[in-house]
Amino acid sequence: MPTSHWAWGPEPEESELREIARLFSEHTGLGDPVAWEPPVPFSPALLPAPRLDVPPLPFCTADPFERAVRTYGQAYRDLIRAYRGDFANAPDLVALPENEDDIERALEWASGHGVAVVPRGGGTSVVGGVESRFDGPSLCLDLRRMNRIVEVDETSQAALVEAGATGPEINAGLPEGLQLRFFPQSYEFSTLGGWIATRAGGHFATLHTHIDDLVESVRAVAPAGAWESRRLPGSGAGPSPDRWLLGSEGALGVITRAWIRVHRRPVHKVSVPVRFTEWVAGVSAVHDLAQSGLHPSNCRLLDAREAALTSGGDGRNPVLIIGFESADHPVDAWMSRALEIVAWHGGVAGEARQDQAWKGAFTRMPYLRNAYPGLGVLAETVETAVTWDRFMALHEAVMAEHEGTTCRLAFVYPDGPAPYYTIVVPAVKGGELEQWDDLKRRLSETVLRMGGTITHHHAVGRDHRPFYDRQRPDPFALALKAAKTALDPAGLLNPGVLI
Amino acid sequence: MPTSHWAWGPEPEESELREIARLFSEHTGLGDPVAWEPPVPFSPALLPAPRLDVPPLPFCTADPFERAVRTYGQAYRDLIRAYRGDFANAPDLVALPENEDDIERALEWASGHGVAVVPRGGGTSVVGGVESRFDGPSLCLDLRRMNRIVEVDETSQAALVEAGATGPEINAGLPEGLQLRFFPQSYEFSTLGGWIATRAGGHFATLHTHIDDLVESVRAVAPAGAWESRRLPGSGAGPSPDRWLLGSEGALGVITRAWIRVHRRPVHKVSVPVRFTEWVAGVSAVHDLAQSGLHPSNCRLLDAREAALTSGGDGRNPVLIIGFESADHPVDAWMSRALEIVAWHGGVAGEARQDQAWKGAFTRMPYLRNAYPGLGVLAETVETAVTWDRFMALHEAVMAEHEGTTCRLAFVYPDGPAPYYTIVVPAVKGGELEQWDDLKRRLSETVLRMGGTITHHHAVGRDHRPFYDRQRPDPFALALKAAKTALDPAGLLNPGVLI
Repeated sequence: MPTSHWAWGPEPEESELREIARLFSEHTGLGDPVAWEPPVPFSPALLPAPRLDVPPLPFCTADPFERAVRTYGQAYRDLIRAYRGDFANAPDLVALPENEDDIERALEWASGHGVAVVPRGGGTSVVGGVESRFDGPSLCLDLRRMNRIVEVDETSQAALVEAGATGPEINAGLPEGLQLRFFPQSYEFSTLGGWIATRAGGHFATLHTHIDDLVESVRAVAPAGAWESRRLPGSGAGPSPDRWLLGSEGALGVITRAWIRVHRRPVHKVSVPVRFTEWVAGVSAVHDLAQSGLHPSNCRLLDAREAALTSGGDGRNPVLIIGFESADHPVDAWMSRALEIVAWHGGVAGEARQDQAWKGAFTRMPYLRNAYPGLGVLAETVETAVTWDRFMALHEAVMAEHEGTTCRLAFVYPDGPAPYYTIVVPAVKGGELEQWDDLKRRLSETVLRMGGTITHHHAVGRDHRPFYDRQRPDPFALALKAAKTALDPAGLLNPGVLI
Repeated sequence: MPTSHWAWGPEPEESELREIARLFSEHTGLGDPVAWEPPVPFSPALLPAPRLDVPPLPFCTADPFERAVRTYGQAYRDLIRAYRGDFANAPDLVALPENEDDIERALEWASGHGVAVVPRGGGTSVVGGVESRFDGPSLCLDLRRMNRIVEVDETSQAALVEAGATGPEINAGLPEGLQLRFFPQSYEFSTLGGWIATRAGGHFATLHTHIDDLVESVRAVAPAGAWESRRLPGSGAGPSPDRWLLGSEGALGVITRAWIRVHRRPVHKVSVPVRFTEWVAGVSAVHDLAQSGLHPSNCRLLDAREAALTSGGDGRNPVLIIGFESADHPVDAWMSRALEIVAWHGGVAGEARQDQAWKGAFTRMPYLRNAYPGLGVLAETVETAVTWDRFMALHEAVMAEHEGTTCRLAFVYPDGPAPYYTIVVPAVKGGELEQWDDLKRRLSETVLRMGGTITHHHAVGRDHRPFYDRQRPDPFALALKAAKTALDPAGLLNPGVLI
């Protein structure tokens, strides 16, 4: 359950934040640690009065703190508002259902009172997916109490898990030796239901990149009824019902549980950093690796600046981290061939590692953002996917938008990469939202114009919505809207998202 | 273009059919080659008069032969009717569009005249997916003239192909060294559009089993407009539009072209047959292979009888064919580990082969069926997918339904296999349809009861429809119906399929 009204994780000490800010500023030359601005402490007075009476449901509350910690996701535009004590869009009510009956009762009540319902998991959306950014009263339906592992089928390597379970909760609850191999950067807090609703990306750089590939069946509750697909390893019976819920962002139903594919814990793991002198050489190497059929579990190309910031690079050379993992067999043959491929492109391999140190650093990264508002820097990330033939042009266009933009290729497919861009700039004090919105708009326009998708794994939410509307085929939008109306006739579920 | 009014492929000589029938009967003890019944020769009088005037569109015809060859798919219940000269359900008209304009004009005309439209590719459906089995007049919209390769992007290994192109046409049209690695048993005649509409299965036994995995973007024409997704290697922007068309069986739109992922032609190929003394040992070996992360391209377990019939087995031992292929690297390490795994289950490896002789035999198999009606044998195949924990119980239940049923595991996933059952029995002369329908019903009931899907890669069509309706979640059916109505308000497209 969230415990800070603004921070990633628990409320940090100011001294700790100041120290991170100082180091960050020293390293990047960004922000002013001296002019430190502390967060506005929580006070019930920060919130507007709820526009609704608390319903006669024992799992509902209008407690201001509970509302405050569920007002936003984790975009910078969320962070800065919460930091400054702006909770204008707080939900009027928070529901914490313990089971599907509770959810059905909440939906029934909401329907009777014309109240919008915003389903919420870990609240780590960076695209405004969980914010009540619409007119009229809202109920935040927080699934976090529904976090049990209901059943495990070790023979089929699958588990039935409730939607509110986080990454660590799932892995802690699985039998010894089994793991969900799915580590998004939000791993610590984000939930299974959230991953499915947003088509989240995990840590596999190739093959099973999205949660889509790990889902065996999904159960959801819509105003029109409960929806559960049959548990199947594969099927060709009509369009996949699961694929309609994957990416539905809370608009088609409340995802309550899913059967997911789990893996044996890998015992053979090896990771090799490879240094390139040129970005394009690294890109060519990744292109060939992606088309090699070797399916590395990690294949993360960091440009020189990003490598310096996150992986101990020297600031001059791009670094490619290649990793293979297996619970079944040594992966030497795989790695040998991968290193042959990258060597052909001039890549120089560093020392092989058995552990995966990057993973800890990777999930610690969001904590760094806690220091940004106080320091006066603004951050935005833009991620997309694009076919190889268009990638370099897209890359140059995005990099040209803003000096200091860094890039990594986080996921790769045979037909193209999913580049991830990070922009950290001095914030315009008091005008951060306009500044961020302007940056977002320009970068999103560039991505669309150059043939990319508006999002590879951050979802659409409210921030990507105008661009998503332009990207999707018109008749598909018609069909999606009709499906939504059939499932949610009163339009209660997460209004403004997708439809 | 189809040239026989009943046969798989061109009209065969009777002497040739009699010879195949004699051999088959000798081998299996089934049927009576002496009491041979020849096919009813084609005659325009076999067809009902068209209920419509030919529209003023140059690509439309009411020619009886063109209608006859497009009356059915390739199920046994289709074969026997065509063989006997029953063309009661012939479409009234055939349209052979050369481009999307033609399709739009045909849809417009059909809409104005209240005529149902049945999109058709190679016409190899075995589930009644392309039969005008409904009241009222119908237009068969045959896409076979739209068979061009429009564009190839060698960098991204992708090609834009028109929906009416068959497997051989696609591979012949790709640049030297590139191939679509997708070989369904119907490869010779089935089309890209048909594969997408039915979520067809190819030859990869693991990973990229369905055409779903090879599709980069799809374009379709619906009465509500043309629908084209952006060409992307991956995306997380809402539910995937492509996944709505995949499996749509002509009911949501006419698929006109798609960008598909192609592969470099493999240069490293090895295939090893492995003999088991017990079926369950073979199943255990496949289970472990499926969970090993080795991703064999072939992993086909044939029970003893099926092995004898199709792969030169001795009739006593199940045979597992393991294959690896790569355009990038020798596959020895992969095969070595796979053979270790199967040896642990008692599998005895035969001689490795570089070629893939099974492929020729595999695509020749449908020709064998041409001999069945004359011989008086009836055939049905049932295929499904089921999680491992339920597989053995399902298998035993299906095998118990009918003596002489054979089984192969055609596709395998970490969480379960896709078993394929073949039943060939003496036909009840004159009562074949009832006999087949009864067999179908019993087997389908068993599959559903035991937790399988009604189809892994044969689609729903009209024959699986009642079982599909029970399998899919009710709210999903509501949503699908609403989507259909939005896209095809008059309900012109392939009525009775899916919705």
